Amino acid sequence: MKAELITIGDEILIGQIVDTNSAWMGQQLNMLGIEVYQVTSVHDNHDHIMKALAEAEENADLVLITGGLGPTKDDITKNSLCEYFDTELVYHPEIFEHVQSLLSSRNVIVNQLNSDQALLPASCTVLHNSAGTASGMWFERNNTIFVSMPGVPFEMEAIMTEEVFPRLTKLGITQSIVHKTVLTIGLPESMLAEKIEEWESALPGYIKLAYLPSPMMVRLRLSGYGTDQSVLETEIDQRVKELITLIPEHIFGFDDENLGLVIGRLLVESGKTLVVAESCTGGNIAHFITSNPGSSAYFKGGVVAYSNEIKNKLLDVPMELIEAFGAVSQQVAEAMALGAQKALNSDYSVATTGIAGPDGGSDEKPVGTVWIAVAGPSGIQSKKYNFKHNRERNIIRTTHTALNMLRTLILTENSTAK
Amino acid sequence: MKAELITIGDEILIGQIVDTNSAWMGQQLNMLGIEVYQVTSVHDNHDHIMKALAEAEENADLVLITGGLGPTKDDITKNSLCEYFDTELVYHPEIFEHVQSLLSSRNVIVNQLNSDQALLPASCTVLHNSAGTASGMWFERNNTIFVSMPGVPFEMEAIMTEEVFPRLTKLGITQSIVHKTVLTIGLPESMLAEKIEEWESALPGYIKLAYLPSPMMVRLRLSGYGTDQSVLETEIDQRVKELITLIPEHIFGFDDENLGLVIGRLLVESGKTLVVAESCTGGNIAHFITSNPGSSAYFKGGVVAYSNEIKNKLLDVPMELIEAFGAVSQQVAEAMALGAQKALNSDYSVATTGIAGPDGGSDEKPVGTVWIAVAGPSGIQSKKYNFKHNRERNIIRTTHTALNMLRTLILTENSTAK
Repeated sequence: MKAELITIGDEILIGQIVDTNSAWMGQQLNMLGIEVYQVTSVHDNHDHIMKALAEAEENADLVLITGGLGPTKDDITKNSLCEYFDTELVYHPEIFEHVQSLLSSRNVIVNQLNSDQALLPASCTVLHNSAGTASGMWFERNNTIFVSMPGVPFEMEAIMTEEVFPRLTKLGITQSIVHKTVLTIGLPESMLAEKIEEWESALPGYIKLAYLPSPMMVRLRLSGYGTDQSVLETEIDQRVKELITLIPEHIFGFDDENLGLVIGRLLVESGKTLVVAESCTGGNIAHFITSNPGSSAYFKGGVVAYSNEIKNKLLDVPMELIEAFGAVSQQVAEAMALGAQKALNSDYSVATTGIAGPDGGSDEKPVGTVWIAVAGPSGIQSKKYNFKHNRERNIIRTTHTALNMLRTLILTENSTAK
Repeated sequence: MKAELITIGDEILIGQIVDTNSAWMGQQLNMLGIEVYQVTSVHDNHDHIMKALAEAEENADLVLITGGLGPTKDDITKNSLCEYFDTELVYHPEIFEHVQSLLSSRNVIVNQLNSDQALLPASCTVLHNSAGTASGMWFERNNTIFVSMPGVPFEMEAIMTEEVFPRLTKLGITQSIVHKTVLTIGLPESMLAEKIEEWESALPGYIKLAYLPSPMMVRLRLSGYGTDQSVLETEIDQRVKELITLIPEHIFGFDDENLGLVIGRLLVESGKTLVVAESCTGGNIAHFITSNPGSSAYFKGGVVAYSNEIKNKLLDVPMELIEAFGAVSQQVAEAMALGAQKALNSDYSVATTGIAGPDGGSDEKPVGTVWIAVAGPSGIQSKKYNFKHNRERNIIRTTHTALNMLRTLILTENSTAK
């Protein structure tokens, strides 16, 4: 079964928002064994929407449309769909009641724009939107299914999960796609490719390998295509095991895992705690860790020590040390990590101090210069990096590099402890 | 001039990465007055790439292609382009030298995969990639320009900025598009629409209005289309002035501004400082503030007080208070804000304590219950919220609501001080 996604909205084409819906839908459909053939983003423009619908009907068995269903005048998807399917809007009192009850729970008074959301095309099956006021719509024509949903991500996700997937599952899908993603850190793409070249060449034709580099990591995605889900899973598991033996120290996780999650698991296993002392990362390490549910079990918190005063006051970094070596130095990074570990009574700590940019660089310490220190029960490690990127990227690279240093330290401590 | 963007890569269609390149390109092209007509994402598949190129050639004057230029075997864009333009790969020694010097600066040894990146189609103009090893390619045919670039965002951005835009500017573009975005907070979309209904109806036909709701804010985008840039700018400025008089308290900024930036400006103007005391937001407020360059001028740092121990130890919140009212309470939120303000010697502070979820909720305090407190030179304010969302969204909503409370407090303090 082949799907096409159509996203409708000027805001995507002029780059005001990033299209995260398509990625979410692609992931979910894949798990159901439905291949996304194409994603097409078009304007809030009648002719353009009609053209995209017609082209998608030719290519795909399933067309998922997002966007343009809001209560305001710039949203024209509903009327365009009426014309495409040669039908007209009819009033649904039960939808009006839903809109009314949802808005009153938010202390919003229903107006004409809201009540127009109860007008829906006569020939569609209305899909309940538990998260918002714009209903989904399900049309069928010439063996192609069309589903229209609002563009607000959590509303689209609610309709997909509660209404669309159960219906698709009933259709009985046979094509299997199995993906497994291996998360690596510490090797650039081409060095990684060289290290695993023989392994890659030996992959069977029905398993594809893709390299997905980012500032955080290089992901290796294995995709198997066939008819038997369990055969594909077994084969891919075997290939992943071989890969692990080739680059064990560079693989930190799989699929949707992240370094924060992996570190959390290691800390829970060993019953240890973590704190942070962040200067140049400005809270991003703490944010990254606390994005994972359950992080309060091992993460106690920490200090965002942006000013030297706070480095001194809360982390006991001596002012003389900062004056002698500068805030961006091995001495200060280590003093921050040890100070946080002690003051906040934690087993592990991670500290960053650097120049994120765009200002603050010098010849000796250019923008991107970062010192990272990680402390554990048996001691401390620190390292200097030169990331040479823009502010955002320097913060991301520092965050992930620091977390990987921490991961390695915990692994070493845990293996020593055994 | 009409542009189409083609992004090539299975990773987009299976949802493994979010396509941020298209948004960036859309923004930049708009500023040059080039309208993006469509974004199309296709597989790393020869036939599909050829079909997308042919369709784009029909619709657009400019086709920008990203992805599939890496050194690894899954990347087939270069060979597909050779076939499409009926040309062959030729070796460029100067590109090989560039690849070699770039990799050696990163301590990577050049291998066969890297040296193949010096093979490029004979009929294209090679575009220098200052940020990576995969060159850009510029083709022209039947009055359509095709540009192929790597999919790694910072490499694509380098080639666009240094090579593509200067060439496009030389073409002499006349169509003008002017966008102005008004950032609002504190009113849901439909209530906002009702408040500005008359103003919206009075907009001339060549100015379009779009509502862009998100968990952070509702953005109102005005887009003017015409031939005279300065006429459009004047007209849109006038309409925005009218809008400000309608909803003054809900407008916090414009275009790419964010609450952190706006708050930073207010603090710099009044020469005041800020600290944070974050529990449920786990560092996200600090991260949001420090994402803005120059934030060290007014942001001193703060405490991520995830554990009660840290709330007590670093922010002087009495343990008896936490035991009596619970960590998620008005009393604790206010004690955190006052504790941070005092201990960290700051003019302003912002504190959050709540249940982000998915665990930790109770009947009395369900997931999404949040107390926010903001303290300033003249006093403290606090408020309870029930966000009722998932973890990620609760953190985002709390962050932005807290920052907006802070913004309002600073405005009040500044106007009182005058």
